[in-house]
Amino acid sequence: MTIYEFINWILLQICIYFELFPLISSSLTKLYKGFNFKIYKKFKNARRGVIYTPHGNIQTPAFIFCATKASMKSTTIPDVIQNNTQIILSNTYHLFLKGYDTIKRLGGLHKALGFNKPMLTDSGGYQVFAMNFHSVSKDIKGAKNRTYKPTLIKVDEEGATFRSYYDRSIVKLTPEKSIQVQIDLGADFVVVFDECTSSTISKEATKKSMEMSHRWETRSLEYFHKHQKGNQSLYGIVQGGTYKDLRKISCDYVNSKPFFGIAVGGCLGESTQEMHETVNYVMDKLVKDRPVHLLGIGYLEDIFNGVEQGIDTFDCVHPSRIARHGIALIPKTRKNQLDLSKGKYKDDDTKIWNECQCSTCKTYKRSYIHMLIKSGEHMAYNLITNHNIYFMNKVMEDIRYGIEIDDLESVKSKYI
Amino acid sequence: MTIYEFINWILLQICIYFELFPLISSSLTKLYKGFNFKIYKKFKNARRGVIYTPHGNIQTPAFIFCATKASMKSTTIPDVIQNNTQIILSNTYHLFLKGYDTIKRLGGLHKALGFNKPMLTDSGGYQVFAMNFHSVSKDIKGAKNRTYKPTLIKVDEEGATFRSYYDRSIVKLTPEKSIQVQIDLGADFVVVFDECTSSTISKEATKKSMEMSHRWETRSLEYFHKHQKGNQSLYGIVQGGTYKDLRKISCDYVNSKPFFGIAVGGCLGESTQEMHETVNYVMDKLVKDRPVHLLGIGYLEDIFNGVEQGIDTFDCVHPSRIARHGIALIPKTRKNQLDLSKGKYKDDDTKIWNECQCSTCKTYKRSYIHMLIKSGEHMAYNLITNHNIYFMNKVMEDIRYGIEIDDLESVKSKYI
Repeated sequence: MTIYEFINWILLQICIYFELFPLISSSLTKLYKGFNFKIYKKFKNARRGVIYTPHGNIQTPAFIFCATKASMKSTTIPDVIQNNTQIILSNTYHLFLKGYDTIKRLGGLHKALGFNKPMLTDSGGYQVFAMNFHSVSKDIKGAKNRTYKPTLIKVDEEGATFRSYYDRSIVKLTPEKSIQVQIDLGADFVVVFDECTSSTISKEATKKSMEMSHRWETRSLEYFHKHQKGNQSLYGIVQGGTYKDLRKISCDYVNSKPFFGIAVGGCLGESTQEMHETVNYVMDKLVKDRPVHLLGIGYLEDIFNGVEQGIDTFDCVHPSRIARHGIALIPKTRKNQLDLSKGKYKDDDTKIWNECQCSTCKTYKRSYIHMLIKSGEHMAYNLITNHNIYFMNKVMEDIRYGIEIDDLESVKSKYI
Repeated sequence: MTIYEFINWILLQICIYFELFPLISSSLTKLYKGFNFKIYKKFKNARRGVIYTPHGNIQTPAFIFCATKASMKSTTIPDVIQNNTQIILSNTYHLFLKGYDTIKRLGGLHKALGFNKPMLTDSGGYQVFAMNFHSVSKDIKGAKNRTYKPTLIKVDEEGATFRSYYDRSIVKLTPEKSIQVQIDLGADFVVVFDECTSSTISKEATKKSMEMSHRWETRSLEYFHKHQKGNQSLYGIVQGGTYKDLRKISCDYVNSKPFFGIAVGGCLGESTQEMHETVNYVMDKLVKDRPVHLLGIGYLEDIFNGVEQGIDTFDCVHPSRIARHGIALIPKTRKNQLDLSKGKYKDDDTKIWNECQCSTCKTYKRSYIHMLIKSGEHMAYNLITNHNIYFMNKVMEDIRYGIEIDDLESVKSKYI
């Protein structure tokens, strides 16, 4: 870095800190009080921004961790915060079935969880899809098949009717109901209710579903602005499967509606290449003044591609889920994984990742964590979860720095 | 409290803080460098003391929490420390079967766990017993029966031979081996290897076992002083079952040997009354200048009785084990328990215990924890474990205060 580049970087930090001279600002701040989105720096299509919320700012690009059922798995809220987490999400579908009344009565997710930073709730639309196809993500992301009893009864213009997986009671989620639940849950970001489609259905069916999703989104938007209490903002969702012409229609739809942010959802494609193509196409068509979230994506390869296309936030259960199988995230391995349950770590007295400053790596060694896994001690998963959370936050921090200094390639080559 | 009593109390605090004018001091400080035990105040037989160790001081009476396999279950070391824990213990038997080489290589338990406070390791003797009778504590404490495959092969003068419950390999634990393992694990307090007997065996068998335990204790003592590195101290164990004459012999034995501390072990009796009688008898016979530990006792009723007889420390898996079944400790209920899994807590938006200052009660409500239990979220058990740890430490703090102001009865009536 030359002295000129260094001064430039310092000036950028000052601009970000004092909120000066953004390249782009949200045009919807009157509609969403307490919220804003500003981009302070671009590197090609990648954006270094800040999302402002009533619960604090999110430096973007950022990763959103999953507290699906209003709880972080294998870790705690203080640990999540200590490891630099900016934002977490909970799930409307799961909480609607259990916990909604409790969270509502306790004054919302922030209070119930003791998490005083930005939160997002998704709408439950993805889970409606997941139930229909008996698999959470096979058709969207090519993940491993999982079998469980299908619970969806029907999807019609009004909404989705299904059985609760807790007590088999029949429940109905509509756009209005989903938004009402999300208003009561009180997250900073609320997401419209949509239908998520499989890659196995026809283009015609994808189109019909997308059109219904758009009508649901409009109903979500109307209900939201009629009933919200002035401290939340709404994200629309782009659908259209892997069909470019449909994605174009869906982009035009969300562009035309006053959503504070836009989430890229639905089936993105079977292969990594197909997924990247869909994301790239969509990002080209979206308006530039709103934060864009890529739903359910957590591999570093996909995150780097998303960032390069202008995606601002990502979420995925991946970092915390693999932790519960003994797998830590590190740079420069296959899928960035290190399986600490393997015998070769029995005598490995190094940290998970040598450079790591996470709460785990400050104290614990691979051999000790391996021993805990083999002894069936749950603390192993807590230690790895905390590490993985720190790791993802560190990757995003490095990505932000990469955009700031016009060098994303070095960051990418550090990790992948 | 009168002004005179208050001044007295302040003077006592000053004495404790500056280590002035103890009533009793350990006579074994030359043998155990870096260790001491001082009693600053007595109320009847109850003792308000301090145990000094190379890893800090323990204000007594104190409770020792179980990190059996070198890990706290359902919580973390930082959480344990945050909730005022003074000392934890690990188990030689479990670590001998898995983890010993790792912990040894990492420089001992303190370093491996990142716990820089006093620690104790027990000798494995209790587990030898537990395996023999196919139950961990049925015969000693009348706890619920648990069945698992017996693994003990034989107990002879040399030691105990058994199969590892991990891989069915044959392993042998002798007094010398147990002490060597404990030296390598590096806890501040090491416990002699003994044989623990059932209440179902004859007096003759109890006597024979006790006599062998004494020979094992002597071998433990000799091996310890020959091989220890000068930063650990040794506890002897009183055996003799429920037979007063045998307990007398065993008390005479431990009194006569230079153990830094004395643990009361073996079968104490089936009923609470019988247990209290055994403890009371033993405490009457023991020398007064050493810290006395009551092994495996965790009910408040028994702790109060123990304290009244002069016991200085207690340990039990109880507070953390019941937490993993959704049960929180609170004052003034049956066995001090509150079962948060019960439906009646669904709409209970109060803290677990209204006065509580623990990391859980600062933020979380009964209804939220109940919801997490019903959703299968592990965080529930973390929150309850942390509360139970704080609760036990708070009880012990109040007990210390009760001794200081000559009023244990008020403390007892606050909790029981």
